[in-house]
Amino acid sequence: MKSLTKSFFATILFIATLAQAQVTVNPERLEHRIKELAQFGMQENGETERVAFSDADVAAQQWVVSQLKGMGLATTIDYAGNIVAKRFGTDKNAAPISFGSHIDRVPHGGNYDGCVGSMAALEVIETLNEQDIATKHPLEVIIFSNEEGGVMGSRAMAGHLNKNALPVTNSTGYSMAEGIMRLGGDTTQIAEVARKKGDVAAFLELHIEQGGTLEKEKLDIGIVEGIVGLKWWEVKFNGFANHAGTTPMNARKDALLAASRFIIAVNEVATSFDGAQVATVGRIEAEPGAPNVIPGKVTTSLEIRDLSSEVIENVFTAIQKRADAISAESGVEISISPLDTTADPAIMTPIIQKEIENTTNTLGLSYRYMPSGAGHDAQDMALIAPTGMIFVPSQGGISHSPKEFTSASDMANGANVLLNTILALDKKLD
Amino acid sequence: MKSLTKSFFATILFIATLAQAQVTVNPERLEHRIKELAQFGMQENGETERVAFSDADVAAQQWVVSQLKGMGLATTIDYAGNIVAKRFGTDKNAAPISFGSHIDRVPHGGNYDGCVGSMAALEVIETLNEQDIATKHPLEVIIFSNEEGGVMGSRAMAGHLNKNALPVTNSTGYSMAEGIMRLGGDTTQIAEVARKKGDVAAFLELHIEQGGTLEKEKLDIGIVEGIVGLKWWEVKFNGFANHAGTTPMNARKDALLAASRFIIAVNEVATSFDGAQVATVGRIEAEPGAPNVIPGKVTTSLEIRDLSSEVIENVFTAIQKRADAISAESGVEISISPLDTTADPAIMTPIIQKEIENTTNTLGLSYRYMPSGAGHDAQDMALIAPTGMIFVPSQGGISHSPKEFTSASDMANGANVLLNTILALDKKLD
Repeated sequence: MKSLTKSFFATILFIATLAQAQVTVNPERLEHRIKELAQFGMQENGETERVAFSDADVAAQQWVVSQLKGMGLATTIDYAGNIVAKRFGTDKNAAPISFGSHIDRVPHGGNYDGCVGSMAALEVIETLNEQDIATKHPLEVIIFSNEEGGVMGSRAMAGHLNKNALPVTNSTGYSMAEGIMRLGGDTTQIAEVARKKGDVAAFLELHIEQGGTLEKEKLDIGIVEGIVGLKWWEVKFNGFANHAGTTPMNARKDALLAASRFIIAVNEVATSFDGAQVATVGRIEAEPGAPNVIPGKVTTSLEIRDLSSEVIENVFTAIQKRADAISAESGVEISISPLDTTADPAIMTPIIQKEIENTTNTLGLSYRYMPSGAGHDAQDMALIAPTGMIFVPSQGGISHSPKEFTSASDMANGANVLLNTILALDKKLD
Repeated sequence: MKSLTKSFFATILFIATLAQAQVTVNPERLEHRIKELAQFGMQENGETERVAFSDADVAAQQWVVSQLKGMGLATTIDYAGNIVAKRFGTDKNAAPISFGSHIDRVPHGGNYDGCVGSMAALEVIETLNEQDIATKHPLEVIIFSNEEGGVMGSRAMAGHLNKNALPVTNSTGYSMAEGIMRLGGDTTQIAEVARKKGDVAAFLELHIEQGGTLEKEKLDIGIVEGIVGLKWWEVKFNGFANHAGTTPMNARKDALLAASRFIIAVNEVATSFDGAQVATVGRIEAEPGAPNVIPGKVTTSLEIRDLSSEVIENVFTAIQKRADAISAESGVEISISPLDTTADPAIMTPIIQKEIENTTNTLGLSYRYMPSGAGHDAQDMALIAPTGMIFVPSQGGISHSPKEFTSASDMANGANVLLNTILALDKKLD
C-alpha cells in the first residue's frame, strides 16, 4: 500500500509535469497579432517601415500597451521608453521572470525579427490567463525601445547606456533623446531604469535566427549559447592615383588592387580557423572613382564576430599579418584603425540554456545549440540577470529584409518553448 | 678643281643643314609663357582650374589669340571654338603644316598637359619670326577646344563630332553647345570646320608623356607610334545581401568578394600578355555598403587600352573567361556590358615618326618609340592628315594633377624637335 501510494503519487506528479510541459499557445492568435502589428507603418507597396521613434513606432507601442492592459497587466512606460507590463505572482517577494523583445525595425526590414518575441510574450500571457495558471514569480513582459539603433532600452535597463548616444539622430530625424521622449520616456531620469543583479529572477528572449542554419538542418529550435562579440575597424589603402592609359601595369600603385587582395585575405583567414567566427568587408570606397584613373585611395570596413574575444583578436592578428604582406608586395600603404564599436560577447546563462533544452525535449521538438551572430536585448540583460535566448527558423536565412519570414508553426513552437521554460523556471528558481 | 668645288658645295650644304637643324627656341620665353598661361584660372591656393568653357578658359583663349596676332598671324576662331592662326608660306598653293594642342584642363589638373604643346607652338612661330625663316608651306597653329571633355575641337575638324555630345553639360554647368558659343564658335555651322584629306599637309602635336617611362629610362623624347584605343565596360556582380553576424562564411554570396577576385583577375590577365596593354578597374560601388551587411550588389568599371583593337578584344575575352569561372565558383552572377565609349587606336604616320627620329638624332637628343596611353587631338587629326606626336618627360609619371611637372629644358627639347621637324617636313612634303 505504501509503495502503491508512492507509485500513485509519482504517476500523478509525472502526468502533472507532462500536462504542465504541454501548455501550448494558440498559433493562429499569435500569427494574427504579428499581422496586426505589421499594420503599423505599412506602406502602399504592402511593406512596413517602423524605425524607432517614428509615428508608426509610437502608434505600435500604444497598441501593444492597450493589448497588455486588456490582459489585466499593470503596464507602464519606463524612463527609457520601454514597455514594462507586470502579471502578479503568488509570492509577492519574488523577483520577476521577465521576457520580451522589441517592435522597432531597421529601415526596409521585415515583419518577424523582434516582433515574434514581442507578440509571443503577449501570447504567453494570454495563454496563462486563459488556462488560469498562476505563477509563484511575477511575470514581466518587456518591449524594449530602439533595439535596432543600439539596443537602447535594454542598455538603459542594464545601467550602461552611454550618454553620448542620446544626441545621435536616426533616420526619422529625431535624436535618441527626442525619440525616447516621444515614446513617453524621460531622458532626465533615464538612469533610474537601471536594475541591479537580483532585481530580475531570469530573462528570456525569443527571436528569429536571422541565419539559415536551423532551416538547413531541419531543426525547430535554436538554444543560444551566447551572443557573439564584434569589433569594427576602418582600413585605409594609400596607393597612387594616376592616368589609367599612360601608367604601365608594372608602374602602378593601385589601391583597389591591394584592397581586393585584402578582402580575399579576410575571407581566407576567417575560413581557415575552426569555429563559427565571421569576418566581413561590407563597405568600400575608391578615390577618385573614375574608370580611367587608377584608384589612389581606398577605404573599407572590417568586422569580425565571435563568441570569444580571444578568437576575434586571433583572427584580427592573422588579417593584420596578411595586410602587412600585401602592403610590402604592392607598395600600397595599409593602415587598420579600430572603431569605437566593440561589443563584448555575452554568454547565455548555462542553467537557463539547460532548462530551454529540457523544455524543448519535453515538447518533442528538435534543436541545436548555437551562437547568435546578431546583437539582441538579451546581451544587455545578461549583465544583470540569468538570461536565455530561444531561436526559431528564418526562411532562407533572410533577415532585415521585407523577404524575412518565419512560419506560424515555427513561431508557435518558439512561443511554446518560451512559455514552458518560464513555467519550469518558475518552479526551479527561488 | 671640279672635285674641290663639289666637296666645297657638299660642305656648305652639310653646314647649312646642320645650322637649320639647330634652329632652337628660347627656353626661358617658353617657360615664361607656360607660367603666364597658368595665371588664367589660378586659385588662392596657387593651383589653377581651367575646365573647358569656364571664364578662365575663355580668358586664356583671348590671351592666346592676342599673342598670335602680335606675332603677325592671321588668327581666327573657327565654328568649333578652335583657335586657328596662319603664317603664310612662300608657296601659296601648298597645304599648311599644322601643329598645336589644347589649353583646357581637367578639374584639379596641372600646368603642363596640353599647355606645353600649345605654348611650344607659339614659341616655334616666335623663333621663326625672330630668325626670319620663311617656309614653303603655310604654318598653322591650332589650339583645339575642349580636348579634355571629348577631344571636341579636333573631332569637329576631323568631321566626326557626334551631335549627341553637344547637349552634354560639363563641370562648368555649360553644355558643349553653350561652351562652343562662349568660345566664339557657332554650333549651327560646326560641320563646316571639317577638313578633307589633303587640306592639311601634316599635323604635329607636342605633349607631355603623362607616364613615367621617359623619366625612368632617362630619355629626352618619346616618338609616339600611335594612340591606344580604349574600350569601357560596366561589370555587375549580383550576390545576396545578408546579415554579417548571422550568415556563416560558407553560406554567403558575397558580391564584394567576387568583385575582388575579378579585379585581381583583370590585373593578372593584363600582365600575362606580352605588350603594353593596360586594364584598369577604377570605379567600384558596393550595396548596401554597411559594415555589418554582406554586400549583395557590386558595380565596377573595366577599361582596356592598347594600340591594337585585336589585343583589346583578346584581353577582354580572357577576362570574360576568368569572370565566368569566378561566377561559377562563388554563385555570384557577373554580367559585363560594353559602354558606348570606344575609341579606336590611331597609328601615327610612319614617315612622320621617322622624320621626328631624324630630327631628334640631329639635335643630339635621346629617344624611344612608344605608344600614347592617353587620348589626344592628334588621334582625330590622324584621320585626315599625316600626323605625328612628340612626347617630353613627366616628372614622376604624374599627370592630370597639380603635381604634374616638366622641366624647362625638357619643354625646350620638345619645342626644338617640333620646330626642326616642321622645317624638315617643309622641305620634304609637296
